Amino acid sequence: MKMTPEQVKVQILTAKEKEEIQAMNATIPPETQQDALEMMLKISGLIRSGANEFLTKEYTYLTVFCGIFSVLIYIATDAQEMPNNSEIQYMPFTTIAFFIGAATSMLCGYIGMAVAVYTNVRTTYACNISINDGFHVAFKGGKVLGFALVGLAILVLQLLILAYRKLVLPDNFGQYEVQVSELSRQLFEIIAGYGLGGSTVALFGRVGGGIYTKAADVGADLAGKVCEGLEEDSPDNPGTIADNVGDNVGDIAGMGADLFGSLAESTCAALVISAHSLSILGTTDATYFPLMVSAIGIIASYVSVLFVRVGEVTSENVENKLKLQLTLSTSIMTAFLYAIIFVMPEVTLIEFAGVKYEPTRWHIFACVVSGLWSGLAIGFITEYYTSNKYGPVQTLVESTRMGAAPNIILGLALGYMSTIAPILLIAITIWVSFTFAGMYGVALAAIGMLGCLPVALAIDGYGPIADNAGGISEMSGLDESVRHLTDKLDAAGNTTAAIGKGFAIGSACLVSLALFGAYIVRVEEASEGTHSYTVNVLQPTTFAGLIVGAMIPYAFSAMTMAAVGEAANEMITEIKAQFILMKQGQPPNHERCVAISTKASLKKMIAPGALVIFTPVTVGLLFSKNALNGLLAGIIVSGIQIAFSASNTGGAWDNAKKSIETGEYTSKIPLNDDEQATPFIFRKKDKDGNPTEEHKAAVVGDTVGDPLKDTSGPAINILIKLSAITSLIFGGFIAQ
Amino acid sequence: MKMTPEQVKVQILTAKEKEEIQAMNATIPPETQQDALEMMLKISGLIRSGANEFLTKEYTYLTVFCGIFSVLIYIATDAQEMPNNSEIQYMPFTTIAFFIGAATSMLCGYIGMAVAVYTNVRTTYACNISINDGFHVAFKGGKVLGFALVGLAILVLQLLILAYRKLVLPDNFGQYEVQVSELSRQLFEIIAGYGLGGSTVALFGRVGGGIYTKAADVGADLAGKVCEGLEEDSPDNPGTIADNVGDNVGDIAGMGADLFGSLAESTCAALVISAHSLSILGTTDATYFPLMVSAIGIIASYVSVLFVRVGEVTSENVENKLKLQLTLSTSIMTAFLYAIIFVMPEVTLIEFAGVKYEPTRWHIFACVVSGLWSGLAIGFITEYYTSNKYGPVQTLVESTRMGAAPNIILGLALGYMSTIAPILLIAITIWVSFTFAGMYGVALAAIGMLGCLPVALAIDGYGPIADNAGGISEMSGLDESVRHLTDKLDAAGNTTAAIGKGFAIGSACLVSLALFGAYIVRVEEASEGTHSYTVNVLQPTTFAGLIVGAMIPYAFSAMTMAAVGEAANEMITEIKAQFILMKQGQPPNHERCVAISTKASLKKMIAPGALVIFTPVTVGLLFSKNALNGLLAGIIVSGIQIAFSASNTGGAWDNAKKSIETGEYTSKIPLNDDEQATPFIFRKKDKDGNPTEEHKAAVVGDTVGDPLKDTSGPAINILIKLSAITSLIFGGFIAQ
Repeated sequence: MKMTPEQVKVQILTAKEKEEIQAMNATIPPETQQDALEMMLKISGLIRSGANEFLTKEYTYLTVFCGIFSVLIYIATDAQEMPNNSEIQYMPFTTIAFFIGAATSMLCGYIGMAVAVYTNVRTTYACNISINDGFHVAFKGGKVLGFALVGLAILVLQLLILAYRKLVLPDNFGQYEVQVSELSRQLFEIIAGYGLGGSTVALFGRVGGGIYTKAADVGADLAGKVCEGLEEDSPDNPGTIADNVGDNVGDIAGMGADLFGSLAESTCAALVISAHSLSILGTTDATYFPLMVSAIGIIASYVSVLFVRVGEVTSENVENKLKLQLTLSTSIMTAFLYAIIFVMPEVTLIEFAGVKYEPTRWHIFACVVSGLWSGLAIGFITEYYTSNKYGPVQTLVESTRMGAAPNIILGLALGYMSTIAPILLIAITIWVSFTFAGMYGVALAAIGMLGCLPVALAIDGYGPIADNAGGISEMSGLDESVRHLTDKLDAAGNTTAAIGKGFAIGSACLVSLALFGAYIVRVEEASEGTHSYTVNVLQPTTFAGLIVGAMIPYAFSAMTMAAVGEAANEMITEIKAQFILMKQGQPPNHERCVAISTKASLKKMIAPGALVIFTPVTVGLLFSKNALNGLLAGIIVSGIQIAFSASNTGGAWDNAKKSIETGEYTSKIPLNDDEQATPFIFRKKDKDGNPTEEHKAAVVGDTVGDPLKDTSGPAINILIKLSAITSLIFGGFIAQ
Repeated sequence: MKMTPEQVKVQILTAKEKEEIQAMNATIPPETQQDALEMMLKISGLIRSGANEFLTKEYTYLTVFCGIFSVLIYIATDAQEMPNNSEIQYMPFTTIAFFIGAATSMLCGYIGMAVAVYTNVRTTYACNISINDGFHVAFKGGKVLGFALVGLAILVLQLLILAYRKLVLPDNFGQYEVQVSELSRQLFEIIAGYGLGGSTVALFGRVGGGIYTKAADVGADLAGKVCEGLEEDSPDNPGTIADNVGDNVGDIAGMGADLFGSLAESTCAALVISAHSLSILGTTDATYFPLMVSAIGIIASYVSVLFVRVGEVTSENVENKLKLQLTLSTSIMTAFLYAIIFVMPEVTLIEFAGVKYEPTRWHIFACVVSGLWSGLAIGFITEYYTSNKYGPVQTLVESTRMGAAPNIILGLALGYMSTIAPILLIAITIWVSFTFAGMYGVALAAIGMLGCLPVALAIDGYGPIADNAGGISEMSGLDESVRHLTDKLDAAGNTTAAIGKGFAIGSACLVSLALFGAYIVRVEEASEGTHSYTVNVLQPTTFAGLIVGAMIPYAFSAMTMAAVGEAANEMITEIKAQFILMKQGQPPNHERCVAISTKASLKKMIAPGALVIFTPVTVGLLFSKNALNGLLAGIIVSGIQIAFSASNTGGAWDNAKKSIETGEYTSKIPLNDDEQATPFIFRKKDKDGNPTEEHKAAVVGDTVGDPLKDTSGPAINILIKLSAITSLIFGGFIAQ
């Protein structure tokens, strides 16, 4: 049943690639080539079907969950009396918006995954030719993900707005002449259901995917690498397919859903807030300004990715190439923004939460641009702390000579330290945008930070694709030089993934603050009496809420980390059992490992998910809105710290390990006189081929960092955003 | 120059002990005994002189620092115009109060250290006789520390109040007839300098001592145990003396200063607040009620320690004995409180920050008692998470079979998880006390939580003494059975130390909130315009302050953890160099290690210390009081989470390691069929005498936990409190 090389090629290669392989055929022994290609196909098929299986199951569960949740949403929103608008009484508009958001988010996750499993094997193949080809294939995959996702998010939202305009608003509202009124805010509060749907799916995507990927990774590493001394991605390790599936379902589908949620929510927040200010704005353009910023971002991103083809990609410049993309798109977007803001009608007066703001065009520009550039700056700071080119990670590498414990201590310290600069930047951004234009300004800053999302997502998606390509190359028994190139691509991807996480966390903070503001207004205006629009922490219930809120991200992290630990244990037990069978001649059973990861992650995502979704509403209903106000503030301020430190610590450990594995890092701290003359070189194996103590210590750090950087850390973004949007949606209900 | 056994005995033994040793002499070969006793003397001498050297240097530095700081204090407080009170214009009253607080704190630290180094060798000796004797000697040491410290704190404060009454208040104020006025609050704001002095010293004591103890511990462990395969506390390890010195300067002097600070500050906060309400209270008794609660605590504690002699102490009941002490003193205190509250004149009306409270006697009782009992409950929850008798630590022990990484992952998760229950308890306490009696109620709850401080301190002090006793026994080459007994005492001490840390963190939160309240009132009343007494987080500057504040504990943790890592590296380099010399026949040079630890810790305590002391004032002056309001709230809510999780994670890892070392833990999770029949037993060494993988993994966890539980974690309490009291003291200045 062996396929001929031609059959294989037909299945995975494009016309141009076929030409290239003909050129390559001259240099590689045909026999090896045939096996390798067939193996590549088989393995990528396993990864694809594993990823499909997981997503299908996950989305089935999620659909059921969303069905149940929508009953609650209906009761708390659509079933409530809607003042001054008899036409939409008791119609399930919010619920439908929620479902559309959820469906769009699932679609985005699915597209990302489909693109990634399509591209990974092609990247491996292209790395056979050159790193330049490999890079472009992987980046193309990322681009599809980025543009598809952002485009879809904006498109669906716009369609929803147009449809709801017709359906929700009374007949005398023309399509483009929204009467300046309370009704317009109601419209956008209903549409905010779209954001809630997106984030609900994102939460389970991140948590479920995160548990999946890290249970497989940690399990495969510990059972295979540590116990049996196998190489990373060895085809003899039954857990490796699950590990590679995990990259797709966690880092691609999960991350795509996460950032889709951010975009949807920040746009919804801005719409609600700007609708609230409409009576003073006197123009609808300002309402749509947020959507326009996102649209400009798509164009700016499109222009900047045109430049990616300029110049050959080499092992040395991969990372810079990616970073240049970010800087370029940010610069182009700034120019575009300037043009558009100074062309649009001026927003002269915004009233929010009882305070009037009179922003000039420069102020509005400052709001968006402060978000945009502080996002980029946060990205580069994250890179400083997680790339092995700089001091922080090098300190970790040096510390591995003292053992695993110093590596862990200094790694945790590194993560904590890395919160300082991003937090100061976010504080400045909030201060600037809030002062200039109130919560509307904060929402604009959030949208600004997400402005170049297509590029950021392209880069984010690129990483796991390159990682998968490496796995496929290793498992297919391709030449070591191929693996070396994919490793180079992957290392750059690790750093840029950290940059992407920085964006995601920063924007989550801004988005949540804007949603928090929108929620406060909704609650206050739904309550009796005078409206103070304040959240006074020097009030018993609020302060109690505040410290409990600050605790929630810890509880959530604990639950997700423990889930990874437990799921990894199940995986280890399975792999160890398989090793015994394999020694009796049976082949590794990858499907069983995939099934275990799937089942464990789906089971274990329920508790942390429920914690996030139900805590705000429960607290609001049981302990008053003051408690919920404090809770939200606490979740936001505490959550971003953990999110930054967890992501950066994990990224730093990962790259410290990679630094040792490449054998390219030379110690800068001589421990004795001999080393003064010939500096110590960190290596994976000593001259007898045994793993070094340094590498072992680095692997401990990397393994500890796995759940931090890929499960608990990134999921906290969604925890923050989801708490805020849940409160906004349920705000009116809670106030009553 | 060998001393005779008699000479040795004369130096270290009491009359009764001499009798006992005569009985013992019959059973031990005289030659061994002589060597051991001499060795004990020598080693305890080294520890004493090391501790003395460190404290002398530290206090010298601190005196200089306090001198410089006092100039700032003078400028910001005493040099400002004092409305309505010409008699105290420009007199350095606050500065003097600050100095007295600092001096008292140093004295407390010194007393604790002196008692501990006096008692440690006696405990070793007593363990020669029985665990019962050993326990009572160690506990007696703790008792001296506890009662001396609390007594001193209250006494000096009371003297200060009496003196300042005469000096500060105009002549027409009788000693016991304070005129109901603004002046009385001024008086107590001046006296709050006492709390600031105490906490400033505590900060450097905790940070400096914490770096000292953990640099020595981590350094000695890694260089000695891991690299050379030496036993813990081996006399051949040049770092062991420094390690034992560290227990005294960090865990005793540092912790004593910490809790002294809590007590001083919470009392000051309560006095400021109650003075503020005086105009309505119409009686001075209510003002002094906080001092009375502390005084009742001393009596209740005294009564409860009388019961410690009831029943023989055995290996099994040590821990329960200590826990019983806590429960007993809390119960007795509750009864006393009931009696006193219902005898005192009723407080009927409190006005604070523009809100009026009308607490009944039951309300006041509830405030104090909620603090008292939630403190105890937090202690027991902490115990649940850190004792090897319960599930959480056992999970860690089981995980060591999978390697170091799962132990670290689950340990971090455990720490995060352990924040939930204490935070909920604190939230409830705050809610109850704040609702019943405003900030006055919160201050009462804080004082209530510290009510049984003498007992808590006795138990806290007991731990390091037992730990030292074990070290001395090991280094003196005493029989293994002695070490076994000291280990039992020490294990109980580890758990109770965790309980003590729980108290310290919980009370720090309450104290800081009360100080925060006092600060807000001071700032508002020093400002122009109407007073809102609110901290509205939905205000740009405040929210920016809030997220920056929440970041400060992370920055502080990073600095202290990195300091330990770096100081430990210096220590490792030194010890490794000494090992080379020792192989050429030279004896270990303990003094050099002590000197390194001393120097490194003093140098490295400056940066984190400066961060804490100057951040609030700088933020307040540069970015307005709103920024400072947010900053304070952020520091408090984020700090307590890190403090709980760091302390508990570290404690759990420590006890997981101990669990393996005692060889008493049997696995509950069989990994294969063989283990179903005969369960796996965790051991330090395998049957060939080689260290087991489980133990190695546990040691990594323990080492990582060291700086978390003894340096960064506990220092965060002081960070929280100090930020709040600095703001209170400088509040008037900032407002202007």
